[in-house]
Amino acid sequence: MTETIAETLDKAMQASPFIRFAGLRIVAHDSKAGTLEMEMPARPEFLRGDDGDGMVHGGPVAALIDTAGDFAVAAVVGGVVPTINFRTDFLRPARGTLRAVAVVRRIGRAICIVDIDVFGAGGTLCAVGRGTYSGQPK
Amino acid sequence: MTETIAETLDKAMQASPFIRFAGLRIVAHDSKAGTLEMEMPARPEFLRGDDGDGMVHGGPVAALIDTAGDFAVAAVVGGVVPTINFRTDFLRPARGTLRAVAVVRRIGRAICIVDIDVFGAGGTLCAVGRGTYSGQPK
Amino acid sequence: MTETIAETLDKAMQASPFIRFAGLRIVAHDSKAGTLEMEMPARPEFLRGDDGDGMVHGGPVAALIDTAGDFAVAAVVGGVVPTINFRTDFLRPARGTLRAVAVVRRIGRAICIVDIDVFGAGGTLCAVGRGTYSGQPK
Amino acid sequence: MTETIAETLDKAMQASPFIRFAGLRIVAHDSKAGTLEMEMPARPEFLRGDDGDGMVHGGPVAALIDTAGDFAVAAVVGGVVPTINFRTDFLRPARGTLRAVAVVRRIGRAICIVDIDVFGAGGTLCAVGRGTYSGQPK
Repeated sequence: MTETIAETLDKAMQASPFIRFAGLRIVAHDSKAGTLEMEMPARPEFLRGDDGDGMVHGGPVAALIDTAGDFAVAAVVGGVVPTINFRTDFLRPARGTLRAVAVVRRIGRAICIVDIDVFGAGGTLCAVGRGTYSGQPK
Repeated sequence: MTETIAETLDKAMQASPFIRFAGLRIVAHDSKAGTLEMEMPARPEFLRGDDGDGMVHGGPVAALIDTAGDFAVAAVVGGVVPTINFRTDFLRPARGTLRAVAVVRRIGRAICIVDIDVFGAGGTLCAVGRGTYSGQPK
Repeated sequence: MTETIAETLDKAMQASPFIRFAGLRIVAHDSKAGTLEMEMPARPEFLRGDDGDGMVHGGPVAALIDTAGDFAVAAVVGGVVPTINFRTDFLRPARGTLRAVAVVRRIGRAICIVDIDVFGAGGTLCAVGRGTYSGQPK
Repeated sequence: MTETIAETLDKAMQASPFIRFAGLRIVAHDSKAGTLEMEMPARPEFLRGDDGDGMVHGGPVAALIDTAGDFAVAAVVGGVVPTINFRTDFLRPARGTLRAVAVVRRIGRAICIVDIDVFGAGGTLCAVGRGTYSGQPK
């Protein structure tokens, strides 16, 4: 029996130690629209400081952006793809469970482009990303 | 007694849960030249897959790039700074202990620019980054 | 009598040799919403090749992106600002009169971020840009 | 008789209206090292303002960066290639004849990465660029 997209995405998420450790979770996706939403819970190892501020270090925020973009492409082309490059812009401190909303701008055999907005506690837009991915699943 | 740059950097590294967890370590820096080298050991939670390939997930690679750039600026301006944005280009799979070599291209009050090259096992260039940081320590 | 935003933008457009030469024209702006639309007509000196294809060289497309983003910020902060950095992604060949739609994502004293989509003939999305600008008019 | 790389580059430069208009000129290249230098003279239509400051508008600077990177790849793979995306960071005002020094970081079938530094009058580093290009000549 052929695998559904949801099953493919789920297997790929589960097969990655980093994704498992980070607690990343796909909460919605639409292969036709080219959209995907992914959450990352706040975990102590991802905090920026010891000061009780609760701000997530920029590194995990960037990791969420990259992974959400990758899975947005995967939902369209049928499998995860290598990232070519991506840009992360930090707008405001990121706190709490972060929600990445990824929107595919272009799907191509060689090149796919995705925009990813990251929202923190209270729905605050805290970072925006733009990623370029291969269109060929590994 | 005033704190040396090395002490400032060291304190900042130790005060961040993510930096501690990721095992990031400054191995060299030159405040006059605007250079800094930072290592990140391969840890199981940062791997991309369960397949024994040993490839580090792109997220931690990006985190290393961002942090190395930040501390390269810190070594010049006297304290860690917020990241404005940064770009990560993945050239080859990253395996083993990763070594980021950061070179400051410009220091300014509002804007600093850093180039970061990441080398993996065997000295392979696996990723390049370019980051834009504030020039004002937090 | 104080100058309106529209007058400020208009004077700035007219005071730039490159903007005049490129025929750039603001066709809409909304300072509250942080949006601006700018057109660039196809001119022979901006074509990529002699082959009659009509494709605009990537350089002028990037120039349109940068300028539209700058003026989107200007419409909000009251004057043109220096560009810190910007990224251009080329999706499809750009032909005919190009229309840049700029949307401000963040306004700050030091840093502003703008997204710019460029449409070509027939409303085809041909490029996307993301720019980081100072928030301080020159 | 087969065409040399220099002849290929030369023909491509001459076949582009924008390149001709901008007066772009390859002043050095090394296909083995993956380096190329390209100059762009200051022309009145590329100036940012009427104020006699002599500053080149950021658009043409970005165009120089994109084109120099493209031709650096062309010198290695044998022909000009489409640009996928590129980032431009402005460090200082650009004045006079600009000289772009392009260095290839990676050549691949699908993806090539080039770093481009732009120097202005007096050898001042005024902008840095990083471009991603296809590895397939058109």
